[in-house]
Amino acid sequence: MEKMAKAGWNITVSSRSYEPYVDDAELTLRLIRAQEISRYVELGYLDAGITGHDWIIENHSDVHEVGEFLFSKISRQATRWVLAVPEESEIRSVRDLEGKRIATEVTGLTKRWLRKHGVRAEVEFSWGATEVKARELVDAIVEVTETGSSLRANKLRIVETLLESTPRLIANHAAWKDSWKRRKIETLALLLRGAIEAEAKVGLKMNVREAHLPNLLQSLPALRNPTVSGLSQSGWVAVETIIDEAVVREMIPQLKAAGAEGIIEYPLNKVVY
Amino acid sequence: MEKMAKAGWNITVSSRSYEPYVDDAELTLRLIRAQEISRYVELGYLDAGITGHDWIIENHSDVHEVGEFLFSKISRQATRWVLAVPEESEIRSVRDLEGKRIATEVTGLTKRWLRKHGVRAEVEFSWGATEVKARELVDAIVEVTETGSSLRANKLRIVETLLESTPRLIANHAAWKDSWKRRKIETLALLLRGAIEAEAKVGLKMNVREAHLPNLLQSLPALRNPTVSGLSQSGWVAVETIIDEAVVREMIPQLKAAGAEGIIEYPLNKVVY
Amino acid sequence: MEKMAKAGWNITVSSRSYEPYVDDAELTLRLIRAQEISRYVELGYLDAGITGHDWIIENHSDVHEVGEFLFSKISRQATRWVLAVPEESEIRSVRDLEGKRIATEVTGLTKRWLRKHGVRAEVEFSWGATEVKARELVDAIVEVTETGSSLRANKLRIVETLLESTPRLIANHAAWKDSWKRRKIETLALLLRGAIEAEAKVGLKMNVREAHLPNLLQSLPALRNPTVSGLSQSGWVAVETIIDEAVVREMIPQLKAAGAEGIIEYPLNKVVY
Amino acid sequence: MEKMAKAGWNITVSSRSYEPYVDDAELTLRLIRAQEISRYVELGYLDAGITGHDWIIENHSDVHEVGEFLFSKISRQATRWVLAVPEESEIRSVRDLEGKRIATEVTGLTKRWLRKHGVRAEVEFSWGATEVKARELVDAIVEVTETGSSLRANKLRIVETLLESTPRLIANHAAWKDSWKRRKIETLALLLRGAIEAEAKVGLKMNVREAHLPNLLQSLPALRNPTVSGLSQSGWVAVETIIDEAVVREMIPQLKAAGAEGIIEYPLNKVVY
Amino acid sequence: MEKMAKAGWNITVSSRSYEPYVDDAELTLRLIRAQEISRYVELGYLDAGITGHDWIIENHSDVHEVGEFLFSKISRQATRWVLAVPEESEIRSVRDLEGKRIATEVTGLTKRWLRKHGVRAEVEFSWGATEVKARELVDAIVEVTETGSSLRANKLRIVETLLESTPRLIANHAAWKDSWKRRKIETLALLLRGAIEAEAKVGLKMNVREAHLPNLLQSLPALRNPTVSGLSQSGWVAVETIIDEAVVREMIPQLKAAGAEGIIEYPLNKVVY
Amino acid sequence: MEKMAKAGWNITVSSRSYEPYVDDAELTLRLIRAQEISRYVELGYLDAGITGHDWIIENHSDVHEVGEFLFSKISRQATRWVLAVPEESEIRSVRDLEGKRIATEVTGLTKRWLRKHGVRAEVEFSWGATEVKARELVDAIVEVTETGSSLRANKLRIVETLLESTPRLIANHAAWKDSWKRRKIETLALLLRGAIEAEAKVGLKMNVREAHLPNLLQSLPALRNPTVSGLSQSGWVAVETIIDEAVVREMIPQLKAAGAEGIIEYPLNKVVY
Repeated sequence: MEKMAKAGWNITVSSRSYEPYVDDAELTLRLIRAQEISRYVELGYLDAGITGHDWIIENHSDVHEVGEFLFSKISRQATRWVLAVPEESEIRSVRDLEGKRIATEVTGLTKRWLRKHGVRAEVEFSWGATEVKARELVDAIVEVTETGSSLRANKLRIVETLLESTPRLIANHAAWKDSWKRRKIETLALLLRGAIEAEAKVGLKMNVREAHLPNLLQSLPALRNPTVSGLSQSGWVAVETIIDEAVVREMIPQLKAAGAEGIIEYPLNKVVY
Repeated sequence: MEKMAKAGWNITVSSRSYEPYVDDAELTLRLIRAQEISRYVELGYLDAGITGHDWIIENHSDVHEVGEFLFSKISRQATRWVLAVPEESEIRSVRDLEGKRIATEVTGLTKRWLRKHGVRAEVEFSWGATEVKARELVDAIVEVTETGSSLRANKLRIVETLLESTPRLIANHAAWKDSWKRRKIETLALLLRGAIEAEAKVGLKMNVREAHLPNLLQSLPALRNPTVSGLSQSGWVAVETIIDEAVVREMIPQLKAAGAEGIIEYPLNKVVY
Repeated sequence: MEKMAKAGWNITVSSRSYEPYVDDAELTLRLIRAQEISRYVELGYLDAGITGHDWIIENHSDVHEVGEFLFSKISRQATRWVLAVPEESEIRSVRDLEGKRIATEVTGLTKRWLRKHGVRAEVEFSWGATEVKARELVDAIVEVTETGSSLRANKLRIVETLLESTPRLIANHAAWKDSWKRRKIETLALLLRGAIEAEAKVGLKMNVREAHLPNLLQSLPALRNPTVSGLSQSGWVAVETIIDEAVVREMIPQLKAAGAEGIIEYPLNKVVY
Repeated sequence: MEKMAKAGWNITVSSRSYEPYVDDAELTLRLIRAQEISRYVELGYLDAGITGHDWIIENHSDVHEVGEFLFSKISRQATRWVLAVPEESEIRSVRDLEGKRIATEVTGLTKRWLRKHGVRAEVEFSWGATEVKARELVDAIVEVTETGSSLRANKLRIVETLLESTPRLIANHAAWKDSWKRRKIETLALLLRGAIEAEAKVGLKMNVREAHLPNLLQSLPALRNPTVSGLSQSGWVAVETIIDEAVVREMIPQLKAAGAEGIIEYPLNKVVY
Repeated sequence: MEKMAKAGWNITVSSRSYEPYVDDAELTLRLIRAQEISRYVELGYLDAGITGHDWIIENHSDVHEVGEFLFSKISRQATRWVLAVPEESEIRSVRDLEGKRIATEVTGLTKRWLRKHGVRAEVEFSWGATEVKARELVDAIVEVTETGSSLRANKLRIVETLLESTPRLIANHAAWKDSWKRRKIETLALLLRGAIEAEAKVGLKMNVREAHLPNLLQSLPALRNPTVSGLSQSGWVAVETIIDEAVVREMIPQLKAAGAEGIIEYPLNKVVY
Repeated sequence: MEKMAKAGWNITVSSRSYEPYVDDAELTLRLIRAQEISRYVELGYLDAGITGHDWIIENHSDVHEVGEFLFSKISRQATRWVLAVPEESEIRSVRDLEGKRIATEVTGLTKRWLRKHGVRAEVEFSWGATEVKARELVDAIVEVTETGSSLRANKLRIVETLLESTPRLIANHAAWKDSWKRRKIETLALLLRGAIEAEAKVGLKMNVREAHLPNLLQSLPALRNPTVSGLSQSGWVAVETIIDEAVVREMIPQLKAAGAEGIIEYPLNKVVY
């Protein structure tokens, strides 16, 4: 909902009504668990949904994938479903699972993966807190992780990665063929991406002597497609660009060294190329 | 954990360790979801556990049931798994489910119940927020309820009750045969029951003229097994008893009317008959 | 509601329903501002209510007063409506108010009080935060206070007290004549008083040599109506009584000095004489 | 205070002092209930104040209105005082109020409105929670509402609107004639409006081929008064404008379609035309 | 303050005044860091204080010790100042500290302890978070611990214990000679101890056949000094006693086995032998 | 950490690990009390640190000072260590301290200052809450203050200022000679300063007729170094500048009066001249 608000749709969830309100008469929203969304989009109860690639795969859902998003500001990495075992376990690869018991929330995914490797093992559904079980109650777990820190905290070791997953905007096939619905979904995708993109970007603006400009641009390829405009003060130009916040700390000292003055960094709401 | 503390075992869950600490060297504790406990007790990974009757049934677990507890102070009723549909639905009994789709957390229980009634319907696993689905995404749900208020708030109607459930202390069959473990589990059961019992009880103490005592006791059968002791003040006795807090508001006016004086009510930690 | 719970009626206020639920089928509850209760009891919309003596007077309500309660644990004092002015003001008595402007929530009370003293002044209704106005916006205020600390913090001086007020249980005259309703209201009064009484009392129990008993009782008149019971250990008796928590710290050293042993203090839920 | 901070005046309310501190030696602030502000501005105790149009009317205050503001980000609508009755009530218009009882916080406003329509009814002051009274304690209420949701939740129906109200900056007539005070108040108004305006606006910047510019501007009249500046890259211009955040989600897809590139949206602190 | 309240003195700390208020006109309170209390008691600025034995020693304060308390409900153990080093450190005893650097809050205590063992090492004052320093910034630390868990979490190993410490009530020598002050301080000590004692105790009451009494008392020596009183029901007696909450869970099953009936456990406020 | 994040380094402090994580592989962070940082930088356990000038002086640390920062947004003033006494004290200057007792956290600083003035007084270490002691436990205190409000609240009077202090980035001498480390520390300083600078600045953008430009720039010297760029609309230019947020409220009305149109204020992340 926070991303939707940044994209331009304000959603309010009232404790007295059971459907979130969105300030767009053309949309109706439902809040449904990520695990179930692809199933209801496939069946056509929903025209579109945002869920993880992992659950689309786990549910074997036949849906149209409109776009992929990277939500997490911290890591900007995909989440991964991994096979994990206690640090001291003798399990070193999928082969060692033969005859073992595995707890996981994604039993479908896990069983297909075992089958692919020709390994027979017992896979049981875990209702949550799966890491805690790996030490005593089962031999291995298949669990989702982003940075691996929760696994490490439980003294578990990652053996293999089964699947990488990112958030996806998906649509029902029939809805996607309806031109009005498709345009609506595409607009949503465009603005969501613009808002998410902006979270990791900043605007950078600086003045530089015209004579230094080629050097500045050449030595800093990261300054792609800068907007250069003339200033009234003759011999000076204003340079403006959008860059990843992550590189600002390296870039500013270099820009200063290359002759930039009056460098300012400002926040962005959306970036649409 | 709150009940365990009242029973006399203090449990601390540290954010840095992954096993709760209990101040009893003879016990090791694990926090596991109610849904999974009976499975691990059956397999022997745990000697005993506290879980709901519903999940023992759903999991078809072969365990020894040591005792039943009524935890909820408010209702002191059992929880129920019920078939619910939108208020305006035409489904009026299990028969009307033929060919319908049902969402529930207890798919095993639901399928067996349908089979028993000779009804064929699609049962799909719901990851939660099941009430919300009953209106648009499925035809009916099987959901747990205590007072029915959440169902009413979602404008759902209860059609039938599939199962009533209360918390149970269960033991693994082998553990129950081990006399040391059995005595330990029985002690736990005794004190847990004593602590839970005490939550809904209070102590009542009063003085009454000896002459009025028979009348007082006769007219108030709820005052069962009172402890009557003589007072130094001749002709008076002290009467003390334990009663349900729920009846105190009716009892005190009657006791006063029957001649009781200096009535005091005091809180209890445990009651063991 | 906390006092009602202590008296034995559990009230739950749901955010989804607009009438509090009470676990007594014979009662229906409404939550209404203290200022308005006496008006609706007088009109018969409510059979009974709990409100302050001040608002009964301000509203000139013709109702039956069933009982008086002292709620506040800290002070156990009545609240007072006082005339207050800035510390440096020249107003020293009601006489000095002639021609002044006074802000207050109780305009009726204030006007009648001025009239009684033959003083003409402008009285304006204050919506709250009245203390803040006394310094700049009006000449004086009539405000409620318990300990005077909020007035002192605003550097205001109390000139006179207009009214002392305590909580009252009131009933509509017609309801009071209805014997069923009257008995219900009296029961409520009895148990509310018992619960409130108990907040400031504790139980005290001790053993003492029979020989020391007369001395102990004589020298400690505060130990009124103790329950004395014989002990199996010959020559000793058990003494039990209920006393104000406020005097315990003085009493226990004296009891010890007078020969009491094994003194214990325990909490009470209700005290009904 | 949040709006004042955005306008450029930082206010701190200390728990130890009774007057808010503002970082402007030319201003002294008082926090007074909205209901009372116009009265004290009229009397000259305050030079200026911010309050609702409704309370100026209710108080019949003779003050100078400097400006109107729309504070609420969500609705940006005026608040309304409406006559509301239970859904099932037979009251359908002001005429049906003859002889009825009405509860409201704005008794002056309500009485004048009834008089205007030649209707006689009893109007009683409500200290709050007025919605709850409409069902049992009175026949109708006059209550303030923004979206009507609280009324709906209480199952009340709006019959008529008595008054629409927005926040106003008002000044005492004498203060407004004082040129120094007037300039100060006007500056406050200018910056408050600039800050409030900015809450619902965003900056939009994009590059576009010079050739496409006329088409882009013509087809998008909402892009009023854009700032167009030349870029060093020949044939391209930078277009910058301020638009309502509410239309961004429609505008960006259209801008992209019209040839805009590198569209960025950035937040604003103030907008002063 | 919580203990003082349990003892019978209610303390309120207002944010607007700088001295805590206590409801006893004979007492004036000051809140001072535990580290400094003994110093000000010794100098006579305070008549009495509650602080740790450790800080009395660290400050070398010449004060009268009135009593010792064990505050912590969990452990009821003394706190300890220990020498700790990283788990992998080669320091195994005080001898190995020669020439090392030690960080601690108790530099006086540490230097005297080193001197006693004839070891020369550098001792530096630590302002807090001392555990974190042991790994990189110094060779060892002297830190306070109760259960050792914070040290273990930082992977530190306890080498030796320098001092065990419990809370003490101390008095200035002159104050202690003043009979009025001494009695006041002794009363405080008596009631504080009674309240703290009660935190770890409960009351136990049961009925038992007179014939079983000797056996019950003999086999359960922990039931020391029970109060036995006759019941009206011939052949039965009531037994009441105070025991450690920690042993209740073992005691109740044994009492039941020995013939006790109607066992109840109730909470206590104070216990004074 | 908030400043570091603004500068471009995201730090996360996990409750399970004991070293903060920073998203820069070239940095390792430690969180250490301000009082101790300079000591560990001097000893070389840390290459660089951020601490107050006061603690560098108190510790007599020989370190390289890289830069000075003003952190506090409210005051942007330096903090001061002052000699304070009760309002009614007769101490009027450092001379009056002869033979007195002084409590302070900075005993080194205070002793050196007394020595400089040839005054002999007892200086004792205070563990905190020093203001409270000035009234009863010592004759004077040396305490840190920013606005003096905490001292005034305790009714203390400032006698003299011993030291003004601001945050400093300091480096170990050896680290500063290492060119790689030095460049890293300088980059940190540059970006920290850019982020802190930006907290008190805003961007201002407006359009103005070319003809009015000289007048506008001349009459508003605060608009230093504006960036002036041509607009497509002939005769108009865009003016953009960075100014102190504190002067915006005066500036905008003047800009408007001088012919500026479409004035917008926008937030900044960093400002690097």
